[in-house]
Amino acid sequence: MSHPGNLIFAQSGGPTAVINSSAAGVFTEALAHPETFGKVYGAHHGIVGILEEDFFDIGQEDPAELVLLKQTPSSILGSCRYKLANIEEDDTDYHKVLEVFKKYDIHTFLYNGGNDSMDTCNKISKFLKSQNFECRVIGVPKTIDNDLAITDHCPGYGSAARYIATTVMEIYKDATVYNIPQITIIEIMGRNAGWLTAASSLAAVMGYGPDLLYLPEHVFDLDEFIDDVKRVYEKKKQVVVCVSEGVRTSDGKLIPEMRGAVRTDAFGHKQLGGTAEVLGSIVGDHISTKIRNIELSLMQRCAAHLASERDVEESFAAGKTAVKTAMNGESDVMIGFARPQSDPYQCEMVKIPLCEVANTEKKVPEAWISHDGNNMEQDYFDYAMPLIQGSPKLILENSLPRFAQLKFVQAGRA
Amino acid sequence: MSHPGNLIFAQSGGPTAVINSSAAGVFTEALAHPETFGKVYGAHHGIVGILEEDFFDIGQEDPAELVLLKQTPSSILGSCRYKLANIEEDDTDYHKVLEVFKKYDIHTFLYNGGNDSMDTCNKISKFLKSQNFECRVIGVPKTIDNDLAITDHCPGYGSAARYIATTVMEIYKDATVYNIPQITIIEIMGRNAGWLTAASSLAAVMGYGPDLLYLPEHVFDLDEFIDDVKRVYEKKKQVVVCVSEGVRTSDGKLIPEMRGAVRTDAFGHKQLGGTAEVLGSIVGDHISTKIRNIELSLMQRCAAHLASERDVEESFAAGKTAVKTAMNGESDVMIGFARPQSDPYQCEMVKIPLCEVANTEKKVPEAWISHDGNNMEQDYFDYAMPLIQGSPKLILENSLPRFAQLKFVQAGRA
Repeated sequence: MSHPGNLIFAQSGGPTAVINSSAAGVFTEALAHPETFGKVYGAHHGIVGILEEDFFDIGQEDPAELVLLKQTPSSILGSCRYKLANIEEDDTDYHKVLEVFKKYDIHTFLYNGGNDSMDTCNKISKFLKSQNFECRVIGVPKTIDNDLAITDHCPGYGSAARYIATTVMEIYKDATVYNIPQITIIEIMGRNAGWLTAASSLAAVMGYGPDLLYLPEHVFDLDEFIDDVKRVYEKKKQVVVCVSEGVRTSDGKLIPEMRGAVRTDAFGHKQLGGTAEVLGSIVGDHISTKIRNIELSLMQRCAAHLASERDVEESFAAGKTAVKTAMNGESDVMIGFARPQSDPYQCEMVKIPLCEVANTEKKVPEAWISHDGNNMEQDYFDYAMPLIQGSPKLILENSLPRFAQLKFVQAGRA
Repeated sequence: MSHPGNLIFAQSGGPTAVINSSAAGVFTEALAHPETFGKVYGAHHGIVGILEEDFFDIGQEDPAELVLLKQTPSSILGSCRYKLANIEEDDTDYHKVLEVFKKYDIHTFLYNGGNDSMDTCNKISKFLKSQNFECRVIGVPKTIDNDLAITDHCPGYGSAARYIATTVMEIYKDATVYNIPQITIIEIMGRNAGWLTAASSLAAVMGYGPDLLYLPEHVFDLDEFIDDVKRVYEKKKQVVVCVSEGVRTSDGKLIPEMRGAVRTDAFGHKQLGGTAEVLGSIVGDHISTKIRNIELSLMQRCAAHLASERDVEESFAAGKTAVKTAMNGESDVMIGFARPQSDPYQCEMVKIPLCEVANTEKKVPEAWISHDGNNMEQDYFDYAMPLIQGSPKLILENSLPRFAQLKFVQAGRA
């Protein structure tokens, strides 16, 4: 393959514990091929960094710090929630991307994100082609939500799942310690897909799982919920419930919407949270007992200290594979995972056309959720348990995590 | 010393990550001396288990499971919030304790808890003496709050501090990732003492500490707080605030009291929580930006997966020392820690009269808090950093923690 010019990598969407592990894979692989890539750039704040010519020369970073990316949560280059306009309505951003790519001789664009980002990738790739600008565009998946289509699972999910399962075990021990009845409601992220809430059931394998769990895949019936909680409460006096922030009643309402307004973000998605609080308040109207509401909040997506080693290594491999795929001259694909067999677990990198993953959402199969909608079936355990395996050997200082410290040498705005 | 009869151990108060490490120390040491202790009992739900003759024969447990207590959070025997009556008003419970101790030939009573529990210990000890019943009563300290008098620090604090510092680092990375301004308010436990909130500042040593922190030791001035947040916001656009649930305004009000009622527990302590939420709402009235409120909730006191190894081992040693102290015929003391030197760190077990720790509270020294009340001084780092050191080598199954599984062979209610 002829000299493909420079490479730019950008991170988008919500942080995960391992998004930087993919960055480490991309940087390591790309920098190992100076004969192929002239410069390796990292865009500041995702696509915004490209539009604003704000990006860093990764070749000037200390390789040891790049390795530390594997244990550094969130997005080292910064992220964005910027949504490209519909090209038919406004093509300004697309022309700006083309201009920047031309100016900086960028012919390889790797974008790390979820389904919104794959859509962005796809649109940019189509536009560049329409302008006869040669550029390999590769998506690197990332989302704790695990909701990308076709791929067996997503980088970020295994680590979030391990955090959730471990934390639910610990909370269970705490919440059931007193000789006093208590209902504990734990709110877990997940806008439309219940993968993260499902992960709480992995705690049950160890004996400390939630008594009840509720996923957005199932219509949330408030009366059934109250009945479920009452039944367990009467039997055990201590109830641990895990609920997805995204559960909706039969009329399509989110729980916080039952008690007030909900904001929306730049993508038009509803900003959630407050589900456990509202449910706790409703339960309190029916059962007079101690009720505690807990949100796993940002912790569930940035707990690199409790990452799944398998997730870290697969995310790293996805980054490397993205670079290799570009070097093969391929484009318009997202790197995905296939699982040729489950026991023992095997994972293979596959290439999925961007158009097949853009703006789609993979939900938890109905058959993996128990018939009454408040527990998980064995199929889910078989699927998820391999994904949370392994504890990364963390480099610590003062017994605290040592995050990568980059120099961020500005290479844009020349 | 003559045969001291049987030993009973009970756990009280709020859970910690290492309270069971002290239990492991007590059980291991007591069971190693069958010539001294006839039976080793564990009371179910603290003092309530004694009153209700509900306790377990620990000698029948698998020793390997007792070792696993060192990585099992919360209180394996269960806890209670039961408050003994004032003996002048009602001595029923005290006579019941005496009756049970006589019935089961119990002459050694070890109680694991915070200052309320040391008060309970002290009252029972005095009563038993007044009845000429020989019993060695030893307190084993435990509290994430670190507020027990005289002892240099408390078992449970180091682990909670390590969890808080690590988690604040991770949240900091997540909360500052976007090119969008954001104010993140993290609420940390601590009714009257700010030790736990102070621990968030340890994250700053690694470069990811809160911009501002507020302890209950300092009067909380709402105007100053808003000014502080505004100042940092104008400079950085992203602000991370850590605030103790126990901060009070100059008229003695807790933050949640500014917007509604606050419940009280069996000890008459106000049930806190909601501080970050109320402060977030107030900040939102002054600064129009994205605001996120996070409660570290129960996770900060039960995160055994992120325990400080030093805390685990010191807690274990405190349990062993309590047994040895009873074997020496001593009584009416709590095992405490002294620090002969800080660098390198040394810790010695000491015995502190129960009456000196009962119902007292040790606060963060004013000199360790910065003059403007929103940061910590070097003295605090020098004090706290040694306490969070070391990662316990956890035994995992399925990459999830393996908690101790006891048989709980009932030995009371005969």
